[in-house]
Amino acid sequence: MPPQERGLMVGRFQPFHRGHLEAIARLRASVPEAELLVGIGSAQHSYTLDNPFTAGERMEMLLRATEEAGVTGVRPIPLVDIDRHAEWVAYVESLLPEFGRVYTNNPLTRLLFEAAGYAVEEVPWSRREEYEGRLVRRELAGGDAWKSKVPPAVAAYLGEIRAPERLRLLSTKDAGKVAHPKGGA
Amino acid sequence: MPPQERGLMVGRFQPFHRGHLEAIARLRASVPEAELLVGIGSAQHSYTLDNPFTAGERMEMLLRATEEAGVTGVRPIPLVDIDRHAEWVAYVESLLPEFGRVYTNNPLTRLLFEAAGYAVEEVPWSRREEYEGRLVRRELAGGDAWKSKVPPAVAAYLGEIRAPERLRLLSTKDAGKVAHPKGGA
Amino acid sequence: MPPQERGLMVGRFQPFHRGHLEAIARLRASVPEAELLVGIGSAQHSYTLDNPFTAGERMEMLLRATEEAGVTGVRPIPLVDIDRHAEWVAYVESLLPEFGRVYTNNPLTRLLFEAAGYAVEEVPWSRREEYEGRLVRRELAGGDAWKSKVPPAVAAYLGEIRAPERLRLLSTKDAGKVAHPKGGA
Amino acid sequence: MPPQERGLMVGRFQPFHRGHLEAIARLRASVPEAELLVGIGSAQHSYTLDNPFTAGERMEMLLRATEEAGVTGVRPIPLVDIDRHAEWVAYVESLLPEFGRVYTNNPLTRLLFEAAGYAVEEVPWSRREEYEGRLVRRELAGGDAWKSKVPPAVAAYLGEIRAPERLRLLSTKDAGKVAHPKGGA
Amino acid sequence: MPPQERGLMVGRFQPFHRGHLEAIARLRASVPEAELLVGIGSAQHSYTLDNPFTAGERMEMLLRATEEAGVTGVRPIPLVDIDRHAEWVAYVESLLPEFGRVYTNNPLTRLLFEAAGYAVEEVPWSRREEYEGRLVRRELAGGDAWKSKVPPAVAAYLGEIRAPERLRLLSTKDAGKVAHPKGGA
Amino acid sequence: MPPQERGLMVGRFQPFHRGHLEAIARLRASVPEAELLVGIGSAQHSYTLDNPFTAGERMEMLLRATEEAGVTGVRPIPLVDIDRHAEWVAYVESLLPEFGRVYTNNPLTRLLFEAAGYAVEEVPWSRREEYEGRLVRRELAGGDAWKSKVPPAVAAYLGEIRAPERLRLLSTKDAGKVAHPKGGA
Repeated sequence: MPPQERGLMVGRFQPFHRGHLEAIARLRASVPEAELLVGIGSAQHSYTLDNPFTAGERMEMLLRATEEAGVTGVRPIPLVDIDRHAEWVAYVESLLPEFGRVYTNNPLTRLLFEAAGYAVEEVPWSRREEYEGRLVRRELAGGDAWKSKVPPAVAAYLGEIRAPERLRLLSTKDAGKVAHPKGGA
Repeated sequence: MPPQERGLMVGRFQPFHRGHLEAIARLRASVPEAELLVGIGSAQHSYTLDNPFTAGERMEMLLRATEEAGVTGVRPIPLVDIDRHAEWVAYVESLLPEFGRVYTNNPLTRLLFEAAGYAVEEVPWSRREEYEGRLVRRELAGGDAWKSKVPPAVAAYLGEIRAPERLRLLSTKDAGKVAHPKGGA
Repeated sequence: MPPQERGLMVGRFQPFHRGHLEAIARLRASVPEAELLVGIGSAQHSYTLDNPFTAGERMEMLLRATEEAGVTGVRPIPLVDIDRHAEWVAYVESLLPEFGRVYTNNPLTRLLFEAAGYAVEEVPWSRREEYEGRLVRRELAGGDAWKSKVPPAVAAYLGEIRAPERLRLLSTKDAGKVAHPKGGA
Repeated sequence: MPPQERGLMVGRFQPFHRGHLEAIARLRASVPEAELLVGIGSAQHSYTLDNPFTAGERMEMLLRATEEAGVTGVRPIPLVDIDRHAEWVAYVESLLPEFGRVYTNNPLTRLLFEAAGYAVEEVPWSRREEYEGRLVRRELAGGDAWKSKVPPAVAAYLGEIRAPERLRLLSTKDAGKVAHPKGGA
Repeated sequence: MPPQERGLMVGRFQPFHRGHLEAIARLRASVPEAELLVGIGSAQHSYTLDNPFTAGERMEMLLRATEEAGVTGVRPIPLVDIDRHAEWVAYVESLLPEFGRVYTNNPLTRLLFEAAGYAVEEVPWSRREEYEGRLVRRELAGGDAWKSKVPPAVAAYLGEIRAPERLRLLSTKDAGKVAHPKGGA
Repeated sequence: MPPQERGLMVGRFQPFHRGHLEAIARLRASVPEAELLVGIGSAQHSYTLDNPFTAGERMEMLLRATEEAGVTGVRPIPLVDIDRHAEWVAYVESLLPEFGRVYTNNPLTRLLFEAAGYAVEEVPWSRREEYEGRLVRRELAGGDAWKSKVPPAVAAYLGEIRAPERLRLLSTKDAGKVAHPKGGA
């Protein structure tokens, strides 16, 4: 399809919560693109407190949640970080099919894509303070508060993969990076 | 969806030709999965004689060709190479949603996935000698023989992005790697 | 030797202190393995406040300390970090001879190795608060308190390589990363 | 020219301020080298709060400022970081023409170059507290205080490339890394 | 200086021979730029048969040869390869001060820079067959034929660094890569 | 132990054959070092025709073979390649405990270590043509000729890990790199 038929939104989705789903649903409902590309950022990271889930797990969450909600035309694609911001737009362009519009509330993402000639629009977030990744990750480490912050299909999936236990472990003082566990430091 | 509902096939698709489309169509027609993940390998490479097209361009080809042919349930995902074969299955698992079966005719891919406990099956290729990436790339550098080797939607797209000119340039003696052009050596 | 004959423990050993030596000595005394592999984690780092010593220097400390204490059957191996936790077990498996049991007090290391089917046991630390890498590094930057925290052979070696001076330099406000010295920022 | 004819100084120059210019001018005026190599450290970074400018932009600032001030014999060269401090001197030696003396106030840079046999001398900074990169970057995000901290040619250039707007954007809470914008987290 | 005042030429210069010098001299004599940026490509490679000299050695050759020939306004800058051609122009732009025109005889370099909107012109090579890097490298491994192919200052420098001995060693069957010497294979 | 007490030899050991064992046994018998460090080069590679075995498998071979032959004082250490030859000695020094002498028949390895001030001596190979890695790998893909080229303990181990089947698969036309299997090209 021609580039103007696709939009792009990027996030880390650690985990994929209601805020993500609502924003995506609004974009799909209101804008004319045939397809919304959703870049799953920092795809190489997992099993850390800030990035507990693999890119594959995050894609699974997005797919189950959008299917449950009947939202179609969403294409998730993992994006491994590159360290060089000045090349980031060229990098994204080389990995994705052509897109014509970018949705972001991140000022730098806006700056870089606008400099490259893209139309950039706001992501229609709702209740941003409530649905916040960092908060949901902290809640996953103890208690049930997180369950109302994620779509039901995601809540079920997080149970399947025993996410609360993973976050609890990652929250312990000794967890650190596995490659140099504090337990042996 | 549960892992057993997804299959995985990996290729480079330089370019996406009729052999690829027919194999994917047969897999979709004959096997019970709800979805076929298609890894676009060597996603970081482009503008070389062996890898002329970016991962994004290859995804575009696959999407147009499968849409044209009415083949559904295919999910392409770019896979940047890692140099370490011993970690390759773990790497793929971390980037993709869960899958339960692997389709490959590559003996090593079979070996590595079987060692990791996956069911591995043959890709139902037809006329493998005729539809061969290296051949199609060579034909793209001159003449029209390639046009019958790729689906019509891909032929049109390759024209749009002026692929024949790109291949012609990449075939010249001086092309080499852009980072150290022979023109300046 | 068969895998069940080897155990694995991972640490950074910045520096190798009495706590490390005692844990290794207990493991060698109590468990039935013929050999204990000791991964020297974050092997690529050195000359930073958190990682002052090269992997080679840390291996030298371990070798001298175990020889001095008469602890045998210990095989140190440098492990350069990889950024991708989801591949870490596969990475370690590819670099080391086969092992059958993992010793760690790090919950994440436990999680990842258990998920890969390994038996995981606790490291028998003693006086963990006293023998703590961060503390020893801080003491190395001034005074003699560190000398009682490391085995005599390590204390002598740290003198040979003028470790106190190195730590003092690394502790100054301007030290930073050599590649972009604050002195020139 | 023979190695003893060249000196080396390394900095990040984020941005290139009066302190840098004055130190370079003094070195050129007082020491006997025919040429001063100036390594532009962390060359790969840009569009972050700590490293807002590309290596090319920083080189442009240095060239304009030294030309304006009539300082000659300065050769700027970008230096991409390597992670391994123990190899840093060998890395720098492989990328630069031969040099015989190093100017640095960074204790670690001094340690590593002295260990490799180089003569190391102090950089003649003046009013170090006033001309401090971090401070200038903060001032760039709002107000005009930065204008007196940089050479006039740099002030003009920072205006041309709309540096204040860039710093303002990079200072917002949501900026983060573009590869995983907090706007989508 | 404004971008239109600078040109860019990229080469590997293994070694810097008369063909390079003549082309640079012509560009400096005939075109209106104030400065010619000369990217030293594959800067990370050295001590291989195809890339025997470090980037620093190659810069030294260029500096001595242009000084000897009285060619001014040439600014050499090392360029470490990146593997991703689709990002190459963005990468070069981030490391160099702004330039307005590119000189190359490499069709792919032309393609990529033209796609990014640059004016691209031919490098005025003379006697290309005679002055060819591969040939000069082969001659360096034995005999004196190379001496007439490089500027006198380069010939002297290649003697100083004992380049003929290096090439002779690199030409032996056993040389290979140092990291996995065939002598131990 | 002091550096003069250790020697270093580097190889890839794909696989570890009689030539390797004999050379190591002679070095241990004739030279005064207390220990011989044996770098296992290209440690990151495996499952390719040139590098079929992981570093861990190669270490296992070396350990079994030296134990079987009663050769002591050998310390194998995996060495992942770095691409930059000019930094290679610094890299090896940072990963290994100190050593004072290098054994190699590789002219470039000799050149680099001599330039860094090391004493370099020849490896006492015997019947080099017969015991050649490439030949043994080819023989592993079919027939039993390889069995007399490796120590008995290695022959047994290669059977255990089904090396002949692996080599046979890696020798097929379609094997290539797993990341972009020709089966999907």
